[in-house]
Amino acid sequence: MRYRIGIDLGGTNIKAGIVNDENEIRWEKQIPTHAERPAQEVIRDMAELVNRLLWEYEMEKSQIAGVGIGSPGTVDAKTGVVVYSNNFGWENVPLGESLKKELKLPVRISNDANCAALGEVKAGAARTYANCVLITLGTGVGSGIVIDGRIFEGAHAGGAELGHTMLVQDGEACTCGRRGCLEAYASATALIRDTRRAAEEHPDSLLWSRCGGDLKNVDGRTVFDAAKEGDACAQAVVERYIRCLGDGIVNAVNLFRPDIVLLGGGICKQGEVLTKPLSEHVRQHCFGGEKSFIPKIGIAQLENSAGILGAAALIEA
Amino acid sequence: MRYRIGIDLGGTNIKAGIVNDENEIRWEKQIPTHAERPAQEVIRDMAELVNRLLWEYEMEKSQIAGVGIGSPGTVDAKTGVVVYSNNFGWENVPLGESLKKELKLPVRISNDANCAALGEVKAGAARTYANCVLITLGTGVGSGIVIDGRIFEGAHAGGAELGHTMLVQDGEACTCGRRGCLEAYASATALIRDTRRAAEEHPDSLLWSRCGGDLKNVDGRTVFDAAKEGDACAQAVVERYIRCLGDGIVNAVNLFRPDIVLLGGGICKQGEVLTKPLSEHVRQHCFGGEKSFIPKIGIAQLENSAGILGAAALIEA
Repeated sequence: MRYRIGIDLGGTNIKAGIVNDENEIRWEKQIPTHAERPAQEVIRDMAELVNRLLWEYEMEKSQIAGVGIGSPGTVDAKTGVVVYSNNFGWENVPLGESLKKELKLPVRISNDANCAALGEVKAGAARTYANCVLITLGTGVGSGIVIDGRIFEGAHAGGAELGHTMLVQDGEACTCGRRGCLEAYASATALIRDTRRAAEEHPDSLLWSRCGGDLKNVDGRTVFDAAKEGDACAQAVVERYIRCLGDGIVNAVNLFRPDIVLLGGGICKQGEVLTKPLSEHVRQHCFGGEKSFIPKIGIAQLENSAGILGAAALIEA
Repeated sequence: MRYRIGIDLGGTNIKAGIVNDENEIRWEKQIPTHAERPAQEVIRDMAELVNRLLWEYEMEKSQIAGVGIGSPGTVDAKTGVVVYSNNFGWENVPLGESLKKELKLPVRISNDANCAALGEVKAGAARTYANCVLITLGTGVGSGIVIDGRIFEGAHAGGAELGHTMLVQDGEACTCGRRGCLEAYASATALIRDTRRAAEEHPDSLLWSRCGGDLKNVDGRTVFDAAKEGDACAQAVVERYIRCLGDGIVNAVNLFRPDIVLLGGGICKQGEVLTKPLSEHVRQHCFGGEKSFIPKIGIAQLENSAGILGAAALIEA
């Protein structure tokens, strides 16, 4: 049996796993990233992590088909270069080439959200499909697009960024410098902002007791919890959130027309509270309506293992 | 030498041309479409047109590699079915299969905007590139996306519809039933609407003399002409138009990151009046900014022959 190694390069930890032909993580290990260090030190640690993993589990390099990396930031999958990562302070880091030199194994890289989407197609909620759009609802809005079983990168690095398509002209400021991007409405950060604003406007809202009277304690769940208890102010925030996310999903459908749209990230734990109204929204608004192909809306399954599995899937088994 | 036949199926005329290996139209013919007829009659006429073209120019079917069709509406390129065409009143018409039976030649179909984009890549303004997004600014906003020299269709029929991605939530009504789509701001129809509105609000505007005092005469050129003469009201309309188109192009860039974005359709005759400010807009607003790959903005070249050339290019030479 041939194995592949997947590396999930995160801002806090570097996780690496040995993945078998059936897309199962057999063994995994992690180390802290210390992303503030020079890139070459981080890459050397990645190589050492892989070597330790192989040594501990008594694997030979000849048993490994290659190493896939899911990296944050803008990644050029063709050249293996991290063009830009804001979190890491990286610019034009030849991650693929450097790790290949250290490990003497084939290396492929892609953006972390792309890898997560590929992971879901290979072994998660989209495993019965070949075409999937994954939208991760976290600090930002990430997206990964898989068409015919392969990551859709766009022609040059910096494509497939659904989070940075404009939805509300002259709307809320986005981290990318534009205003009104999907990310500025559908991220957990945006939801927390809107929860706080709604609470400030409605001193009688349940939102206040839900956060112990201190808006600093508001998180991505607060507004959903208060909405479930019947708080009208919270329900309005949730409705608006789902509407914006739904508009963004319809945009994605009108461009990529996948089999399924998956939601990932912290907010996706709300499950059917999101997927039911979103399915209805897509049915009503996508181009061609009932006459056209309408994708399913689902929740990502792999959670923390998506990164490793998706990265490993960059290497053909 | 092997030839291919390209058919441009339009609402008014059906045009067919015999295209050589160098993407030149050697001979062409056209007949009226009479789109109101049953689909099978239109298809029979398409077959007859091809047969007459072959007969007149003394070509044998054995010299023809195949027939490509650029069709309006939502097209399933895999099955050759026109899923839906509003203009033709077609639903689930097996255009590819039917024409193949009539002609006994391989037939491939795609949406007309997709074919126009492929035509530009093979023989037009994008011929030195493999990755191109074409946006046609006409009655509606069509789009064709070519990645690695092939049309990007999305996974199912009804993808690649940039004109039907939302830009202005709760904005102007769009023909697709949504509000605020790019088409509702960047089509010639939208520009004419906005020109009329501006004229009504500004009785002293040059727009009035430009249309002979009757807003019925406003067309896609009126506002550009008045803007060139220094009319502030017209300049504001042009500025807003370019801004909306620019925002739509940035969305396309953040998803597809092509080598070049081409503008087609009547409005594109404005040339540098559009491409200069749009290039600047994309440079300023696309994800990753100067650190990322920034596509060129250009004008489509093939005009009326794009349809035939692009349709023929569906058949591998």
